[in-house]
This record gives sequence, structure tokens and C-alpha cells, in this order.
Amino acid sequence: MIVVMRWDATDEDVRGVERRLAELGFTAHISRGRERTVVGAIGDRPPDPDAMGLESLPGVERVMLVQHSFKLASRDFRAEPSRVRVGDVVFGGDEVVVIAGPCAVESREQILETAAAVRAAGARMLRGGAFKPRTSPYSFQGLEEEGLKLLAEARERTGLPVVTEVMSPEAVPLVAAYADMLQIGARNMQNFPLLRAVGRVGRPVMLKRGPSATIEEWLQAAEYILAAGNDQVVLCERGIRTFETATRNTLDLNAVPVLKEWTHLPVVVDPSHGTGKWRWVKPMALAAVAAGADALIVEVHPQPSRALSDGSQSLTPKNFEDLMREAAAVARAVGRRLGLPAAADARGAGAVAR
Amino acid sequence: MIVVMRWDATDEDVRGVERRLAELGFTAHISRGRERTVVGAIGDRPPDPDAMGLESLPGVERVMLVQHSFKLASRDFRAEPSRVRVGDVVFGGDEVVVIAGPCAVESREQILETAAAVRAAGARMLRGGAFKPRTSPYSFQGLEEEGLKLLAEARERTGLPVVTEVMSPEAVPLVAAYADMLQIGARNMQNFPLLRAVGRVGRPVMLKRGPSATIEEWLQAAEYILAAGNDQVVLCERGIRTFETATRNTLDLNAVPVLKEWTHLPVVVDPSHGTGKWRWVKPMALAAVAAGADALIVEVHPQPSRALSDGSQSLTPKNFEDLMREAAAVARAVGRRLGLPAAADARGAGAVAR
Amino acid sequence: MIVVMRWDATDEDVRGVERRLAELGFTAHISRGRERTVVGAIGDRPPDPDAMGLESLPGVERVMLVQHSFKLASRDFRAEPSRVRVGDVVFGGDEVVVIAGPCAVESREQILETAAAVRAAGARMLRGGAFKPRTSPYSFQGLEEEGLKLLAEARERTGLPVVTEVMSPEAVPLVAAYADMLQIGARNMQNFPLLRAVGRVGRPVMLKRGPSATIEEWLQAAEYILAAGNDQVVLCERGIRTFETATRNTLDLNAVPVLKEWTHLPVVVDPSHGTGKWRWVKPMALAAVAAGADALIVEVHPQPSRALSDGSQSLTPKNFEDLMREAAAVARAVGRRLGLPAAADARGAGAVAR
Amino acid sequence: MIVVMRWDATDEDVRGVERRLAELGFTAHISRGRERTVVGAIGDRPPDPDAMGLESLPGVERVMLVQHSFKLASRDFRAEPSRVRVGDVVFGGDEVVVIAGPCAVESREQILETAAAVRAAGARMLRGGAFKPRTSPYSFQGLEEEGLKLLAEARERTGLPVVTEVMSPEAVPLVAAYADMLQIGARNMQNFPLLRAVGRVGRPVMLKRGPSATIEEWLQAAEYILAAGNDQVVLCERGIRTFETATRNTLDLNAVPVLKEWTHLPVVVDPSHGTGKWRWVKPMALAAVAAGADALIVEVHPQPSRALSDGSQSLTPKNFEDLMREAAAVARAVGRRLGLPAAADARGAGAVAR
Repeated sequence: MIVVMRWDATDEDVRGVERRLAELGFTAHISRGRERTVVGAIGDRPPDPDAMGLESLPGVERVMLVQHSFKLASRDFRAEPSRVRVGDVVFGGDEVVVIAGPCAVESREQILETAAAVRAAGARMLRGGAFKPRTSPYSFQGLEEEGLKLLAEARERTGLPVVTEVMSPEAVPLVAAYADMLQIGARNMQNFPLLRAVGRVGRPVMLKRGPSATIEEWLQAAEYILAAGNDQVVLCERGIRTFETATRNTLDLNAVPVLKEWTHLPVVVDPSHGTGKWRWVKPMALAAVAAGADALIVEVHPQPSRALSDGSQSLTPKNFEDLMREAAAVARAVGRRLGLPAAADARGAGAVAR
Repeated sequence: MIVVMRWDATDEDVRGVERRLAELGFTAHISRGRERTVVGAIGDRPPDPDAMGLESLPGVERVMLVQHSFKLASRDFRAEPSRVRVGDVVFGGDEVVVIAGPCAVESREQILETAAAVRAAGARMLRGGAFKPRTSPYSFQGLEEEGLKLLAEARERTGLPVVTEVMSPEAVPLVAAYADMLQIGARNMQNFPLLRAVGRVGRPVMLKRGPSATIEEWLQAAEYILAAGNDQVVLCERGIRTFETATRNTLDLNAVPVLKEWTHLPVVVDPSHGTGKWRWVKPMALAAVAAGADALIVEVHPQPSRALSDGSQSLTPKNFEDLMREAAAVARAVGRRLGLPAAADARGAGAVAR
Repeated sequence: MIVVMRWDATDEDVRGVERRLAELGFTAHISRGRERTVVGAIGDRPPDPDAMGLESLPGVERVMLVQHSFKLASRDFRAEPSRVRVGDVVFGGDEVVVIAGPCAVESREQILETAAAVRAAGARMLRGGAFKPRTSPYSFQGLEEEGLKLLAEARERTGLPVVTEVMSPEAVPLVAAYADMLQIGARNMQNFPLLRAVGRVGRPVMLKRGPSATIEEWLQAAEYILAAGNDQVVLCERGIRTFETATRNTLDLNAVPVLKEWTHLPVVVDPSHGTGKWRWVKPMALAAVAAGADALIVEVHPQPSRALSDGSQSLTPKNFEDLMREAAAVARAVGRRLGLPAAADARGAGAVAR
Repeated sequence: MIVVMRWDATDEDVRGVERRLAELGFTAHISRGRERTVVGAIGDRPPDPDAMGLESLPGVERVMLVQHSFKLASRDFRAEPSRVRVGDVVFGGDEVVVIAGPCAVESREQILETAAAVRAAGARMLRGGAFKPRTSPYSFQGLEEEGLKLLAEARERTGLPVVTEVMSPEAVPLVAAYADMLQIGARNMQNFPLLRAVGRVGRPVMLKRGPSATIEEWLQAAEYILAAGNDQVVLCERGIRTFETATRNTLDLNAVPVLKEWTHLPVVVDPSHGTGKWRWVKPMALAAVAAGADALIVEVHPQPSRALSDGSQSLTPKNFEDLMREAAAVARAVGRRLGLPAAADARGAGAVAR
């Protein structure tokens, strides 16, 4: 941590900073530059500038942190990439995992049909919302436990593990009873009681990036889950909020290489929420694979124009097949694989049809 | 709601939109312009474009909503400004209410000393966090119920009603047992289970704006609380996230006149989080009063350099007194009043000192 | 300047940084912390990290600048506030200067009528665009030199000095021949040849903030003008681009106190562009005065619904009078004055009417 | 264009809008919905809301444009993709064109060495700045005409056409005398006199996106060039400004599919400025190719740690070779080609060595 003094700071001001750092257990290293004095704080534990009050001491201009404020999520802590397993699906290995399914579970027919279709096209996991966070209280809020049961039935039929969102700490046991992986939605990225709750449960977690979260803050949110004892965490980039209105969000693919450098946790990309328009999902899915994503999560609906939510960004099963075929080619080009091999695929589809 | 067709949409595409709207209970009004056909949807209930799948129909370019997507919070629903009462404090009347206190309750001595000081300077309510949402899991997370008890003791001593944050649905009864007003923090603005929970409890609510929330989304979040049956809601602008890094957030005072036009709910401004530096709190507090805010919420700490959180943006009691004196002058200039009259003030201070 | 090494940097990497700094004339101060080594660079001239290539050396994580990258514009260079004079108008003194007029000069009648009206209401300078930067090539682009002549005529009639925009280096002599103050528009804030050109001419300059410029970059742009020899610069906050769409821009009043701390240059606020809606101009103008602005620039049009540009954000003369009266009250509340005293005003209006 | 009336608009207000539209040559189509009246304007020419003053009429809430505000750049105007030719290089065809070279021309040796290296690795054009827009007036500003001469020499040696930035209208003839393609930098995207000047010159233009420009505004800027008579325009995405600070800018690859749908102009991506760190350039370059970009522009420097600008984002020739090899594989995976075939490459390199 670096304390930058104001240009007009006095020697007494500098001594004040030194004294305060000493109280907090840090050693001060003072560098007197041409126009500014700078005080480095060195100690045995990570500094928490927000809890040190240094910026309110006389003569202090600002405090700068020189290292990341997350630890368990960092490459310093674990240099090798982590692998997160959901059944026989592995995030963080050679395979680019594809998760697909509808925005929301709407009916038995809808979820079973979608699950069979995405399975046939090579998806490795099924997504679908039972509890839906909706901007307006008047929108469809999900089938709740009934939706969870339908997801479980779809899993039985297709063999695809299921990921679904959980929205409050008290719902964690219920959702964990049905789902193979718990999703923390973008709006809940800094819902700390919820992060702690999923940190204490024995299920892998997919943590979506908040629409205004820096990558640093996102990893601090992951740190809540890791620090609570659950190291099965994957990060999902789903678009940030910017001034651009052509797209629903601005899918920030830059996050993929940044995360690959900063953390050992696997990275998923959601091009459906990232763009908000089905026509732009495939190109951004291909781009995500080329950028190095470990997984994709894609919204698919048998009849997007009748979807109860997010129809405008949902692919038809036919369009999803196209995506899978092209994404597999890009994955091969960057030395990875994506989707089931044709034979396995046929067997899987057969199993569903039985 | 307006459906804009693509330039190359066919007549059959337009009929498809018409049919879908009819199924959903809307009448279609078709306008054929020079380069685009536009379909207006008219019906008895508010359209929810996200649940109508129109953007996935062939030939559709985009869907535009022509009216606000909130109702109970709107001026259409209630033309007169609402007044929200917390004890004898009234938000939305002639008085500009000032709420002050530390970021977090840290100790009995700290909260009682601060409460007495802000009371003496003319504050009308006390703030202080018992449950703290912190970006890092390693930061101080608040005294929890012990903090609530200390707030209640401070209220008894000073007569100041208390506002404090609640972070999860299951904590609502506990916090409501101690607090006069419940705060929903910025990170929880779209924590919908929490919004519903505070909507069902008999306590006024202060809803902070999320750092990436549009004013429209903020009012939709308020709508969750109103629709759950609680109409005692005040909105608190506390800064949005932009590219500017000089300030911790960008306090968006433009929201004040926009809200005054769009909603009947009272508006509070938080210049402490909005700027993040104590030196910039007073000018932005004065600006908020001039812009028409109904209340201010300001962080005050007896010794900011020893605060366990947010010390850099906390005022000393002395600086808070200056703010109050100058803010009172600005309030008078715009036809309002702020702070207790001198005599009452003296009596109040006396009461505390006893 | 601080060079933060990666967690896995070797001693040789640190020596590489040291050697490179030595070549560039800096002394390296090495601090070995718990998890990171940090190298401070100390030297006689300001470091330019972008020209030092340090981030491409092995083992370097990032480079942080500890001081501002502007110099002549800083409080380090000049601790006292600067005063910028345009005729007898002084920016940076006790008076809050009000500049008013139409977005664009449209006709002789329009500009003379507006000039007389704003003069009567107490404005001290006249604004009006002759060269208009328009987002679309098909929009009205201004009357050009004819517009400049009309502005000069309006000045003769009312005595109000004139500020108008210049858009290219070669137009500087022409515009400077008519105008009392040159405006650099927001889109040209980093048009460096233009900044240099106005830096070499003997006219005060109003430098508007770019919609995506940090305050730091804005002051670096001002530095271009100052370094070219013109120290008569005022800064104009006019709104930044954020995700919020309710307002045309997000007027960032936080910039006022930040600038007051970082620079000696006077600060103007433009609530017309900042909000984009005439109904929100007055509250934001009052807020700007309360926040400490040295001047306001406000769009006024005799018939906003017939304006050739920006009609939606233009005040009628009547609404401008209201703004002036209320802004004067707020100015008094914060110890300043705004507008002409009643008697002078009457004389001025008389002079116009003759 | 749609005029949305306020909820409390009177019949007279609606008639006022109708009258104003009639004056402007538009027919009004009135739709009375449940809570809002909406007026559609239909006419023979594109509406310019900013010049119509409708938002200042009584009872008007806001005005919404239903179609794009650019015309020559749109797919409505030209449904087929445009091809832009620079010598034998074609933008918008099957080949993904790669442009490479240093940020700035620094010396004869530097530019000739870089040109030979990027040529050998398969680049099709050379980039290099002679006039540099620098945030600080104290940074290296380019070699100016000397730099242009060196670029021309490098072209002669390698056969690579040259693209370089022009910063002011009066410099256009000079730069056009040396360069094969003119670059408009991000900061000048809305420098309208400059856009008009390059619109009148017989050279292809690369128009970079402004850091805060929407895609719509970017295409309006392109429209300035097209409307001035130059239809040889390519668009270059180079990152937008967001709150994220890990990357220098946020490279917005979503713009690629959006542009492919909205315009016929070819699309270039600049992963160097987009990320700001050389380590993240390759993954984002691959992602750009997968997303459908027609070209890449990449910064390469023989010794990035000694670059006079942007060293931190420059690739070494060796790293650029890796990028080319992997990008060629991704291009093949999406049905395109990138880079010279091996044999041609060998011949080219030989030519340079002679």
C-alpha cells in the first residue's frame, strides 16, 4: 500500500502517517520525490485501506493499493488452473463445456423438449431458471420448486447435470437439493449473505459478474465463497453496463485473458445476456472460445417468440446446432475440443428418445 | 409499446407481429413510414416486452416501450408528493431532513458520542451500520445485533430515530425490531426477495440506488416494495459507477429533478458515498439541497482516521456543524428549512448532556 | 511513479527495472513487501510511463503514477485561484458569472432579441454558435461568418462580451476576430492541434470537458493551452457519458469541488447540455452555484420549439429570469453574488431599448 | 419518429404537436393508448428531432427516433457488403487483413526493421504514427513529415501499403501525399471539419471509434465522410471507455456483429489499444477474427521496452508471429483466410532482404 502525500504536506503530516501505520502494525518506507512524498506500508497482513482512515489524516492526498485484494482466488495462492467438476463435466480442462437451456423453466413439455434438443446438439449441461430475478414485480417470476422438479426430471431423461439460480440464503438448501451447480446471478454478485450461504454448501457455484463490477470486485466476491470453504467456483462473464444501447449489455471478453492471468478459477461466457439479441449470440460465442473461455452458457428455447422471458436473446434448437458446429471448429483451432463426438452424440440422443 | 420493423420486413412479417399481439390481448396500430413500418400495441394492461418474444419474430428490428414500466411509484398514479414519516420526522415536506452518523457502529462510546454530536448540530435522524456489506470478506463486517442494541440506546438518549441497513430477508424481523427505518443498500437494490420482505413489514424503507441502475430500474425496484403493500419508501441517490476515478462514485444530482418529475416518492442524497472524500462532502451536500433534495444522509465519525470503515469520507463533528450551518442557508434560499431552530437545538443538546 | 512487480518476479527482473530507470535518469527505490516488490522512481523531471516501456519488461505487473500529470494547471504550480478576465467580466472572483444565449445563431432577429432578453435578466456574457458541431451531417451546421457578425452586432447593442465555438485550427483567426472568448467544444477537448492554436492566440478560452474525459485528462488538455502560452483558461463541466439515459448527459457536479482542489483555473457549469431537458436546467443551475461553480452557461431561446438545435434544453426568457432570481439567492447563501444589481440592470435594459 | 405525450397532456397539447409537425412537413398519426397518447410523424425526409423543438412543446414527454440516423452507411442503402481497396489489399472480402507496425515512427532503423518483420510474418499493411495525439503536451508528439517519409521508404522496401493518422484538416494534403490510407483517430471521431476534409480526398479512410461513441454515432461520423463523396471507409473498433480499469479500454467486440447487421462498411479491430497490455493482445485478436472482423490492426515494436509510446501494448516480432499463426487457424475455422501463404511469404521476406 502506498500513501501519497499532498504537495503541501508538512514533515509533521508525514510523521502522522508513520505513527498511524505503526499502530496498525505496518512499517513505513518514506520516499521523498521531487514534488511528492510517498509512504509505503509494509507488513505481514494485507492492508485494508478502507479500515485504516489514512485518507482523513492531514496532508494525505490518496492511498493506492499495489496488490490485489483477493487471495484464495489469486494465482499467487494457486499457480495452476483449478478444475471444477459437476458429475463428469470438467470446467478448466481441455474441453470447452457448453451449458444450454431456456432462460426460465416454463412447463414440463418446454424443459424436456429443450433438454433433449440441446443434448442432441452436444451440450454438456442444462440451464433453466426456477427462481427468476425480474426487473419488474409484474413480470413472470418463475415456477419455483415446481421448476426445480422439472429440471431434475430433465436431468434424469438426458443425463445432463443442471445449473440453476438461487436468490436468497434461505433458498440455498432447497435449490441445492435439486441442482448440480448453483448459479449466483449478476444482480446478486455482492449479496454477501448469499455468497456465504453457497460457500457453506457442497455444490459447485457459478458466480456471474455484476453489471457494474470490476474484475477485481468480482474476484473479491468469489473470495467470499472460497473463504467460506467452497473451492468449486467458476466465474461467468455476462456483460457489463456501459453507455452503449445497441446491445443489452456490453459482453466484456477482455475479462477472459485478464482472469486467466489473475486467477486459477475457470471462466464461463454468456453471450445471450451479453448481447441480448439472438442474432449476435453465435459470433460472440465463437469469439469467447477463441479468447480462451473454458465454457459457454447459451439460452435456447423451442419457440423464442413464445418465451416468458428473454425470447429476444434465445436461440432455436436449429440455430444452437449451428453454433455448436462452428464453435467446435474454433475450439479445435485454438487447441481445445467442444461438444460430444458424433457417435457419443447419437447414443445420447438415442437414450433421450427411448 | 412500439414494434419497429426492419427495413426489409415483408407484409407477412407485419402480419406475424399483428397476430402475436392479438394473442397477447393487444390491438395493433400500423404506421407505414417512408423507410420503416412501425406497429403500435394498445391494450388494457402494461406491456412486458421481455415476456412477449416479439424481437424474435421475423422482420422485427426492436421493441420500444413508450411509457414507464413502474406504476405505483409514478406521478400518473399519484400526482401529489408523498410524505413519509419516521416518528415526528417528515420526508417530502418543507423541511430538508438531515440524517447523520457513522458508517458503522463500532462501540458504545463511538455511537453515543456521535449521536449526541449530530443531534447537537441539528441532525433529525441517526444512521449507523450494524450489518455491513463489505467488498472483501476480510474487512470488518459489523457488530450485528449488538450494533442494533447500541443504536437503540443512542435513540433513547437523543430522541433521534434510527435508520440502518438490512441485508437479507431473514434478518428483516430482527432489524425491524430495533430500527425506525430500514435501509436497502446499493448492492441490494435488485435483491428482489429482500425488497418483498421489507415490503411486508411495517417500517419505512430507504432504498439506495444501485451503482449501475438507471432511474427507471430504481423505480421498478421501489415498485416491488410498494406492490408488496408498503408505501413508506424514500429513494436515496448515492452515486453511480462511471469511468471517473477522482471520486469514489459519481454522485448523480440530475436524478433529483428527474425523480421529482417521475415519482411522488421523497428523495434523499448521500454525498458521503457519492464522493468518497470528506473534503468534497459539504459542497455536494449544498448542491443537493439546491437541486431540491428532501433529505441528506451524511457520515460523521468522532475520529475519522480511526474509523473501521469509510473514514476517508467521514466528517468530524466540527465539519458537520459547518455543513449544517451552510446547508441551512441554502435551504432558506430555495424556500425550505433545514436543521432545528437554535433554541430547540440548545434544549436538545442539553437533554443529551444530562 | 511506482513500478509494481508481479508476485513471481525474479531478482533479475527487479534489476532490469532498475537498469531501465537508470537509463531514463531516475533513481530506483526498492521496497520488498510481503507479497510484492515495489520500485519507486525518483527523478528531476515528471515521468511519462507511456514513453518508458516499463510494462513490457519481464516481471512487471503495472506502473502507477503518484502525482498528477499536469503541471501549469495544478495548485502545486499556482496555489491561488486564477482570475480570467473578458472585458469587465471576471471569472474566479466573488461573482458567479452567467453566460446565456441560444445554442446557435439562427437570424439577426433571434440573436438580438435573445441578447437583449438575457441582458435584461442579468446575464454578463452572450453565447451563441456560429460553427456548430453536429452529430449528423444532415443537421443545421451554423451560419458561420455571418453568425459571427451577428454576435458582434449583439455585443455592440448590449455590451455583453461574446463567447463562441471554434472547431478547427485554421478557423481560429477568423473566430478570434469577432469573439471575446473562444470555446473549445466537448468533442474537441483532445483536438490537440486546435488546443495549440488557441494557446497561441490572445483570447481567453473556455475548455469544455469531453464526454468521456476524466478530470485528469481534462486538465492535461488545459495544459496544452497553458503550455502554448495562454493562461486565460476556464474549464466548463457539461456532462459526461454514462449508462443513464433519462438525461442527455450526466452533469458531473462532483467535478466542481475536485477541480477547486486540483487546479487554480475557474470552473463553469453548463446545465443545459448536462441535462438536455429545459425542465431540469434550473435545479441543476442552482446546484452548480451551491457546489461552488464560478460561472454558469445557459441556453436561452425566444421560442424553443422553433430552435434549429437543442430546443428541448433551451429556456424561454421568462424561465431564464426565474433561474437568475433563484440562482442569485443561492449565490448569496454561499457568500457570492450573481447577476447585475437591479439599478444597473434597468440602465442596461434601457440602453438596449434605445 | 414518435412523440410520446405526458400522462397529463391535454387535447390542445396534442393538437399543438400536430400543428408543429404539419409546419415541418410531416403527417401526424395519433394513437391514444391506455395511459399515454403517442404521435407518429410520417414524412418524406428523415426527421431531425434535435432541430424540431418538439420536446419543448407543452405536454410532450419525449421524442423517440425509430430508425437509424445514418443513411449512406446503412444496409437499407446498400444491402451488399462494401469492399475497400488499398493497392491489392481488399477489406471486406474473404481475407482477414492484418495491419501491423509500431505505435509511432521513431527512427529509420526502427520502422524499416519493424516493416520487414511484420511483412515476414504475413502482415498485409504497415501502420505507424507520424503525427501523434498525446494526452499530455509533454509527451513525444511524432516525427511529423520526417515520419511520413520514413513510412514511404518502408513501403518501398516491403511493398506494404501504409496507413497513418491525420489530425487536422490542413494536414490532409500532406499526409495523403505519403499514405495509402488515412486514419482518423478515436479522439477525432467527431472532428467534423476533419471528417469533411478526408471525405474530399481520394484516399481510403480508417475511422476509429471514439471512446465514448455509440455505434450509432460512429456510423453518423462515417456518414460525414460518405456524404462528402468518399465511399472508401473502414471502421475500426479500438475499445470504449467504461468503469473497468484492468484494461486500458474495453474492447467492444459486440460491435462487430452489430456493425455487420447495420452497415455494409468493413470492420477492423485494434486489440492493442483495446486492451493496453501486450499479454492480452493475442487472445483478443483471435476473438475478433472469430467474431467476424474483416481486419486486425496490431502494434509491433522491435523492442517494446524502448518504445517512445505504447510500449506496454506492443508485441515483439516473435509474439506477432505467434499471433499470426494462431489467427490464421481461427480464420480457417470460420471460413476465411489470414496471412500470406508460406511460399509468397518467403518470397516477400527475400525481397526485403535484398
